[in-house]
Amino acid sequence: MEEIFPELTQDVIGRMDRAAPRLREVMTLLVRHLHAFVREAALTQDEWRTGIEFLTRTGQMCSDTRQEFILLSDILGVSMLVDAIEHRSAKGVTDSTVLGPFYTGAQRELDKGDSILLREETGEPLVMRGRVVNASGAPIAGASIEVWQTATNQLYDVQDADQPRGHLRGTFTTDQRGEYEFRTIVPVSYPIPNDGPAGQLLQSLGRHPFRPAHVHFMISAPRYRKLVTHLFLEGNQYLASDAVFGVKPSLIVRPVRQDNNMTVTHDFGLAHLEHT
Amino acid sequence: MEEIFPELTQDVIGRMDRAAPRLREVMTLLVRHLHAFVREAALTQDEWRTGIEFLTRTGQMCSDTRQEFILLSDILGVSMLVDAIEHRSAKGVTDSTVLGPFYTGAQRELDKGDSILLREETGEPLVMRGRVVNASGAPIAGASIEVWQTATNQLYDVQDADQPRGHLRGTFTTDQRGEYEFRTIVPVSYPIPNDGPAGQLLQSLGRHPFRPAHVHFMISAPRYRKLVTHLFLEGNQYLASDAVFGVKPSLIVRPVRQDNNMTVTHDFGLAHLEHT
Repeated sequence: MEEIFPELTQDVIGRMDRAAPRLREVMTLLVRHLHAFVREAALTQDEWRTGIEFLTRTGQMCSDTRQEFILLSDILGVSMLVDAIEHRSAKGVTDSTVLGPFYTGAQRELDKGDSILLREETGEPLVMRGRVVNASGAPIAGASIEVWQTATNQLYDVQDADQPRGHLRGTFTTDQRGEYEFRTIVPVSYPIPNDGPAGQLLQSLGRHPFRPAHVHFMISAPRYRKLVTHLFLEGNQYLASDAVFGVKPSLIVRPVRQDNNMTVTHDFGLAHLEHT
Repeated sequence: MEEIFPELTQDVIGRMDRAAPRLREVMTLLVRHLHAFVREAALTQDEWRTGIEFLTRTGQMCSDTRQEFILLSDILGVSMLVDAIEHRSAKGVTDSTVLGPFYTGAQRELDKGDSILLREETGEPLVMRGRVVNASGAPIAGASIEVWQTATNQLYDVQDADQPRGHLRGTFTTDQRGEYEFRTIVPVSYPIPNDGPAGQLLQSLGRHPFRPAHVHFMISAPRYRKLVTHLFLEGNQYLASDAVFGVKPSLIVRPVRQDNNMTVTHDFGLAHLEHT
């Protein structure tokens, strides 16, 4: 295909001489790919205007409690790709996945075995337990485990005025054997917020907005790289079509009945921080 | 370079089966280039967040009178590229350039030779004249010529409460010989609105925000493709560094003294509409 107006791309890139080196590098790649996209798609003026209006609406949907550009990044797989670039998989280290927009900072500290519920839920009770270990499998005592999930109604506390703040959230600390344990309910699948441009795009693409049921974890310990991940449930109908592409096979777990409770037992492996 | 997480890109693209064909085509190319950009830049989480925040601020800067995403498109050369895709250059047809954000629709109809000023300006008087012709050079009678430019203070009427609305704007019609003529002032260079994210990006890249002095034209006639273009002035210091990449060599004109007035004589060539 004949390349249209190649000197334009050279001109745009050539005018970044005075930019800081990293900005120049990133913007050069951005302009190259953006122009290549426009050329290969042979984007029309009408399509360009549709894109401008879509991005404008996306920005204007953002508020203190809604980040529509992150949702857009999520549904196009960009968030997972950025995560993968910073967190290469390594033997003995748990795979990471997206943080998502519903992490709300440190929560109340709970004791091993406590429940993260602040009110009753109709969901089936679930015990989650296991260890935090290093890449060699040695236990890490005193690791912090933050967890969060939705209620049975598919909403996080911050999306639902009826839930007490902090419901289905909590912070635990591993004991001397690196063990953690808490009580919750079996998580449910839920749609990402789909009343804005990201949701409209999903619909236009013929995609559903659901995330497979999961519990979020953020695990940190001194001298280890912070781990942000989820655990998903085996057999969930959305595992292969998570709206934000967050599922990795190693993160799928199977609850089993144990001491009369549905129980997930899962160990998390942390990577040593490299000395830089 | 080892490609990180290639199956992610395939997964995103593979989930567009139910999209309309053109949307699927455009989004497939967009996702491919967006992911390739993120991989090649090895974008960090911090850089990704900076990008999300930049796009959010860009959307939130938009209002009824400000389109910051168009400005962003302009300064990255995307607007000119889209223009070039729809308007391939052809012998006898005037080159097009960007519409820009300051076109405000049809204006008062003026007679051949009239001035487009609604108040006095300190700028040097200028006569602009010539013909509208087809690609073979035959005159087109009854063509509509809409013109607009800034005042000497570098602002368009819509940016400046002190200017009467419609100042330095007007609509003319070519006579039986295809001729047009109007009186104005020599245009001045001006900065694009640079108090928002687009302006911040320009500054980070070490680029100035100026556009070389120009007069805008939108020329239309039945059975011809509408022409959107500018005329620039020879010798202007910003011709090689227009902030929006709008300059094409064929659009640079030289005013000459004629009948005691600085005069630009320029013919515009229109392309026949193809029968589709």
